[in-house]
Amino acid sequence: MTQHPTPQKVEGTTRLEAFSDGVMAIIVTLLIFELHVPQLPDLSSQSVLNALWVLSPKLISFGVSFFTVAIYWVNHHHFFTRITHTDWKLLWANNLLLFWLTIVPFTTAFIGDYPTQPLVVALYALVLGLAGMAFALMGYYAFFVGQLIAPTVSLPERRREYARAWIGTGLYLASALIAFIYVYAALFILAVIPLSFVVPTLMQAEE
Amino acid sequence: MTQHPTPQKVEGTTRLEAFSDGVMAIIVTLLIFELHVPQLPDLSSQSVLNALWVLSPKLISFGVSFFTVAIYWVNHHHFFTRITHTDWKLLWANNLLLFWLTIVPFTTAFIGDYPTQPLVVALYALVLGLAGMAFALMGYYAFFVGQLIAPTVSLPERRREYARAWIGTGLYLASALIAFIYVYAALFILAVIPLSFVVPTLMQAEE
Amino acid sequence: MTQHPTPQKVEGTTRLEAFSDGVMAIIVTLLIFELHVPQLPDLSSQSVLNALWVLSPKLISFGVSFFTVAIYWVNHHHFFTRITHTDWKLLWANNLLLFWLTIVPFTTAFIGDYPTQPLVVALYALVLGLAGMAFALMGYYAFFVGQLIAPTVSLPERRREYARAWIGTGLYLASALIAFIYVYAALFILAVIPLSFVVPTLMQAEE
Amino acid sequence: MTQHPTPQKVEGTTRLEAFSDGVMAIIVTLLIFELHVPQLPDLSSQSVLNALWVLSPKLISFGVSFFTVAIYWVNHHHFFTRITHTDWKLLWANNLLLFWLTIVPFTTAFIGDYPTQPLVVALYALVLGLAGMAFALMGYYAFFVGQLIAPTVSLPERRREYARAWIGTGLYLASALIAFIYVYAALFILAVIPLSFVVPTLMQAEE
Repeated sequence: MTQHPTPQKVEGTTRLEAFSDGVMAIIVTLLIFELHVPQLPDLSSQSVLNALWVLSPKLISFGVSFFTVAIYWVNHHHFFTRITHTDWKLLWANNLLLFWLTIVPFTTAFIGDYPTQPLVVALYALVLGLAGMAFALMGYYAFFVGQLIAPTVSLPERRREYARAWIGTGLYLASALIAFIYVYAALFILAVIPLSFVVPTLMQAEE
Repeated sequence: MTQHPTPQKVEGTTRLEAFSDGVMAIIVTLLIFELHVPQLPDLSSQSVLNALWVLSPKLISFGVSFFTVAIYWVNHHHFFTRITHTDWKLLWANNLLLFWLTIVPFTTAFIGDYPTQPLVVALYALVLGLAGMAFALMGYYAFFVGQLIAPTVSLPERRREYARAWIGTGLYLASALIAFIYVYAALFILAVIPLSFVVPTLMQAEE
Repeated sequence: MTQHPTPQKVEGTTRLEAFSDGVMAIIVTLLIFELHVPQLPDLSSQSVLNALWVLSPKLISFGVSFFTVAIYWVNHHHFFTRITHTDWKLLWANNLLLFWLTIVPFTTAFIGDYPTQPLVVALYALVLGLAGMAFALMGYYAFFVGQLIAPTVSLPERRREYARAWIGTGLYLASALIAFIYVYAALFILAVIPLSFVVPTLMQAEE
Repeated sequence: MTQHPTPQKVEGTTRLEAFSDGVMAIIVTLLIFELHVPQLPDLSSQSVLNALWVLSPKLISFGVSFFTVAIYWVNHHHFFTRITHTDWKLLWANNLLLFWLTIVPFTTAFIGDYPTQPLVVALYALVLGLAGMAFALMGYYAFFVGQLIAPTVSLPERRREYARAWIGTGLYLASALIAFIYVYAALFILAVIPLSFVVPTLMQAEE
């Protein structure tokens, strides 16, 4: 199918997908390990409820980060259903995406401890924005430069999808700025972004 | 084979399975990391036995959770042997299942520390019940709505399997309630459920 | 190829292998996380050497456990090159093997802290012996009962390989007993077993 | 294709790749877990900046290690696009490579705590050099001894690639020595090596 495969360009994306699946599976699973079991003062149910209440910012940041990384995984899954070849530039664009995603557990734990500190919130949003930029870069390269995509995917479709990649990215970068103005607005946007991806998918009528 | 593949519906379940395998493999492996090496007062074997005795609720909750998540994996494995396509709704139903499962290490550690606290036991059971509900939802969608299953699987068979998905779920949700009435009964049910899945499989005569 | 696939028996071992690869990859990788960075009293190289000397039992137990689990992986890899089908009994025999292997990081950390405590050494050996027994059970079932193996593998070959599965198991169970008599002999056997598997492989002349 | 497959030599590298992907995915993802959330004295942004400044050696060592292990992964990916068979010697050469890589999180955390201690820097470099040696050994065996490579890869090409495998290795081993003479030079080399691999890849003009 490919005529002159060079070390730079090979058919198939299996290993890139397996490595990325591994990294993202570990990220979503390890998020919970920042939730340490609370020490209860006594064995009453009231103490358990109090402890869960104290943990609630961490529980919420865990849930938001889980679904945020899950969206990256779903988009990654969708992206690579059409990619037919890999080369080293694509591998490195993907590695850059994974790099930012591996920082998410750290910023999640940080925001769980200091949920209203503007700089902490901005850092959380910035890392997700940088991950989004890496994804957009990967799309730009695969769609328009490296020709690594199935030729059946039309140019208008590629343009549409590339444009979409910037929406989430723009929202995360905007949240990073908004955090310094009104931190609760930034938190609201960060929590709503996963919903805005998932809900329309689920609402969509069956064909 | 599929005629008009859309971004929403694609053939094959490899990546969904790989991502789920990754998440479940990490969950069962990391459960043990809640078991910290005890500090022994001296080097006698009696001290080791005492330390293991103190650890025993954690050891038991580790074992029960390992085999509980392993059952989810075996069922997931069985479920996807017949699924031929994925779409975004299936991905999100699966992500919801994985979300509840990633909480299991936290509730396992919690129940290991407070094995007879009713609310802690109820939380442990509730998370497994919610995972069961997500699995049932995934089955309902794949079997009856999204038509993502091999057509050779007959409708009565789908109905039977869907009904079975609610048995474990019902038992977990019931345990969550029973925990507030008589916590030892709930613990007994939680420990017996994995056995009730595994033992009949092993007892079953070879054809 | 298979004519009447039932839910119990399906062709292919991909997911079983992927799940097992995941579990074993996590085990060997996380072993190092029991090695905490030492607090140095000052920045001299002597302090670093002292700290590494104090860490040395943990470093050795890390290395031995890494290569011990790696042997299980190599054997698992070899075993499944000939297995053509899976059924639920095979899945559960494999889950039992993985269960014992997931305890290895705990017993490794334990033996790293108390390297000459007989009961701790016996526990380390016992868990590996139980893993070996689960592997032998899996072999017995796949080779002689479930008929899940390629028919090209002759009966004498199956018998030979099944017998071999008991050698390592027997050595581990023996070490568990020897630990109570002379703990250094047990430690010596535990360290030598991985070498006795790896070295002959490497020595073997190319055909 | 292979005529007399023996247990020692089998076609395909899927599981070796899956296991290696798992190990490397976990290594790069867990590096961040050495970055603990700082305790802030107050909620000012100045405190956050101070805390990040204190964390900066760990952040840098995290970033360098991420891209260093990512280079090993890219090279591993490239290497196995041409390998067609595995045997036990190849599995063990690969396991040796993975063994050294699993130590990277420990040496990364160590250098993050003591970034200018010569012996700590030398250890960090040494472990990467030993990983490079294991990779070179794997290449030597697969290319020249075991004949596990696609015959289309010419002998000059194998020699060229094998020679290249020693460049990085040589640089790491040299850094380990340089650390004792002038530690900052060693740190500079360690940080620059990943760039020297990634940048030329990205600079390279599209054909």
